[in-house]
Amino acid sequence: MSVRPRVVVTPGDYLGIGPELAIRLWLEFGDAADFELSLVGPPELWKRAAELVGGAPDELPIVPVDPDADPDWGHLPGIGEIATAVRGCLDGRFDALCTGPLHKADLIAEGFPYMGHTPYLAALCGAPQEQAVMVFSGGRLTVSLATLHVPLAEVPGAWTEESIARAARGAAEVVRKARGIQRPRIALAGLNPHAGEGGRLGAEDQSVVAAALQLLAVEELAASGPYPGDTVFARALAGHFDAVVAAYHDQGLVAVKTLDAGRSVNITAGLPLLRTSVDHGTARDIAWQGRARPEGMFSAARMAAQLARSSMTGRQRSRSLERGALSDRGAGLAS
Amino acid sequence: MSVRPRVVVTPGDYLGIGPELAIRLWLEFGDAADFELSLVGPPELWKRAAELVGGAPDELPIVPVDPDADPDWGHLPGIGEIATAVRGCLDGRFDALCTGPLHKADLIAEGFPYMGHTPYLAALCGAPQEQAVMVFSGGRLTVSLATLHVPLAEVPGAWTEESIARAARGAAEVVRKARGIQRPRIALAGLNPHAGEGGRLGAEDQSVVAAALQLLAVEELAASGPYPGDTVFARALAGHFDAVVAAYHDQGLVAVKTLDAGRSVNITAGLPLLRTSVDHGTARDIAWQGRARPEGMFSAARMAAQLARSSMTGRQRSRSLERGALSDRGAGLAS
Repeated sequence: MSVRPRVVVTPGDYLGIGPELAIRLWLEFGDAADFELSLVGPPELWKRAAELVGGAPDELPIVPVDPDADPDWGHLPGIGEIATAVRGCLDGRFDALCTGPLHKADLIAEGFPYMGHTPYLAALCGAPQEQAVMVFSGGRLTVSLATLHVPLAEVPGAWTEESIARAARGAAEVVRKARGIQRPRIALAGLNPHAGEGGRLGAEDQSVVAAALQLLAVEELAASGPYPGDTVFARALAGHFDAVVAAYHDQGLVAVKTLDAGRSVNITAGLPLLRTSVDHGTARDIAWQGRARPEGMFSAARMAAQLARSSMTGRQRSRSLERGALSDRGAGLAS
Repeated sequence: MSVRPRVVVTPGDYLGIGPELAIRLWLEFGDAADFELSLVGPPELWKRAAELVGGAPDELPIVPVDPDADPDWGHLPGIGEIATAVRGCLDGRFDALCTGPLHKADLIAEGFPYMGHTPYLAALCGAPQEQAVMVFSGGRLTVSLATLHVPLAEVPGAWTEESIARAARGAAEVVRKARGIQRPRIALAGLNPHAGEGGRLGAEDQSVVAAALQLLAVEELAASGPYPGDTVFARALAGHFDAVVAAYHDQGLVAVKTLDAGRSVNITAGLPLLRTSVDHGTARDIAWQGRARPEGMFSAARMAAQLARSSMTGRQRSRSLERGALSDRGAGLAS
C-alpha cells in the first residue's frame, strides 16, 4: 500500500536555476500518485519561473513565506523559504524538504552567518551544528562525510570518533530508509594514505577508528575499518559494503561526483526533519533561460518522498491515506 | 612502421602474485610483434612460476640478477631485480621497465630505506627523490600526484608550486607519449574543499596554483586551475582536460581506483627511464595458486612498450628494426 508524503520545495538562490527546476519538477510530478508537492516562496517568483518553462501559474501549489519563521535572516531571498519549510516540517504540515541551491558567497556578503544549508538547518531545528550529517545517495554509492567544509589542514583535528560515529549513523539511516536494509554494513575510511600503512603514515587511522567502532558497537549497524580511502569505494561498488564514511570532503565527494555525477542526491541526516538537495550549484550563468537540466532536482524530490515514506509511522500513514492517496503506483521501497 | 621496444619485467615480492603474473604475461605476449620481454631474477624462481601456470621453463627469456647493480640492497628478494633492470635501462639494453608489486612492510623490516619503488628508482638513477612523479593512466582518466605517501597533516606543507609543476610535467609527458597529444590540457586541483571556496576555506589554493602556473607558463602544456577536487575528475571525463594533477594521494587515487579499478597503470615519470607497474598489491593470500588475474600486468607491460615506442629516437628505431622487428602489427600509438 502506498502513502503520499508531502514534499516542500524551496527555490534557493532567486538568480540561479533553482526556481525553474522546481517548476519543472512540479510539471513532471505535480499529479504524482506517490508524493505531493508544495512550493514555498513569493507567488511572483514562482509565476515568473512558470511562464519561463511553460507551466500554468494559476495551478501552482504555493506556500507563502512566513515572516516569523526566522525574524533574523528570513528577509534574505531564498532564506525565508527554508525557515518556513523547516517550521512546516517540524509542525507536521510537511513530511520532507527538498532544497534548491543557495549562493553562499552572496549570503555571506549579506552577513548570513551559516556556511550553507546544513548548519542553518541544524540551527532552525535547535540542534548543535555538528549533529547534521551530509550523506550522498541515489547513484551507485552511498557516502557520508565525517568532516565537512573545513580547510584540509584542519581535517586531522576534526576527524574524531564522535564525528565518524555520527556520520556512520547518518549513512545507516539513509541506507535503511532508502534501500530497506535494516543492518547496513558501513565501511569507515582511514584519514591517511593506505589508512596509515600500518602506522608508518599515521597512527590515528587505527586508534580513532577503533574508538569510533566502540561507540557504534551496540547499534543496529555493522561498521568496520579503517579501510584505505583509495580502494574502499571500489570495494563498496563490488558489494562488500552498503555505505562508506569518508574522512573528509574530497575523499568522499571525488568518488560520488566522479562516479555518480548528476545522479547522486545530497541528504541531510541526523536532524528531526528529512531534507534532500540537488548536488549541483546555482549555475547563474545559464539560469532563467529554460535550459538547466532538471534530472538532479527530480532525483532529490523522489529521494525526499522515499525517505519520508519509510519514516512514516502507521498513524501518519493512515492520515496520509485519508488525504486521498489511494493509488499504490510507485510504492517503490516503502516498507 | 613498428618498432620493438625491449621491456624488462621484475617479479616484485617472491611470495606475492608478481612472479606468476609475469609468466602469464610472457605466455600471452612472448611472441608479440610489438614488444620484446625479459624476466629478471633467479632462474629457479621463474621456473617454479612457469610450472605453476603451464609455461615451458626452457624457453624463458631470463636475465640473472647482477650482484653489483646495488651492493647495499641487491641481496633482498625482489630488490636486486630492480637494480639490475634499472642498470640495463640506463645502459640502453632495455627500453622500459615493468615492475611486479613489492611487500613494503617486509622490506622496511629488513632495513630497506625506501618507501616503495618510486624513491628507490630515483636513487638508482642518481636523482633526487622528489624528481620522480607518480602518474596513473590507461583507464578513462590520466592523473598525477603533487604529493605522495605523506600523512594528511603534512600535505598542506608538501603541496608547493614546485611539486605541482613537476606533477604537471609528468602528466604531460605521459599524455604525449601514450596518447600522442602534443600540448595537453592539464587541470590543477585545489587543496581544500571547493578549491578554498573563494578564500573562505583556505587562501593557498589560489596563491600556490598561481605560482605553479607561472612556472609552467613557458612549457608545452596548457595548465589551468585551481579546480575544486570533487568535480575536476568529472570534468576531465567530460573531455575538458587531458589530465588532472591531484593535490594529494587519496584525492587523485579515489578517482582512479573507483572509476578505473584494474585498468589503470601506475607510471613513474620524471626519471631518465620509463617504468610502469600494476596498481594492485602483492595479494599474498591468493599467490602461488594460479588464480591471480593478470589483466593489470598485461596493461602495465603494454603501456611500458607504448611509452618506450613514443620515446625512441630514429637511431634507436633503426637499431630496433635491425634486431628483426619487421612486422608492423600493433603499431598502435607509435609515432
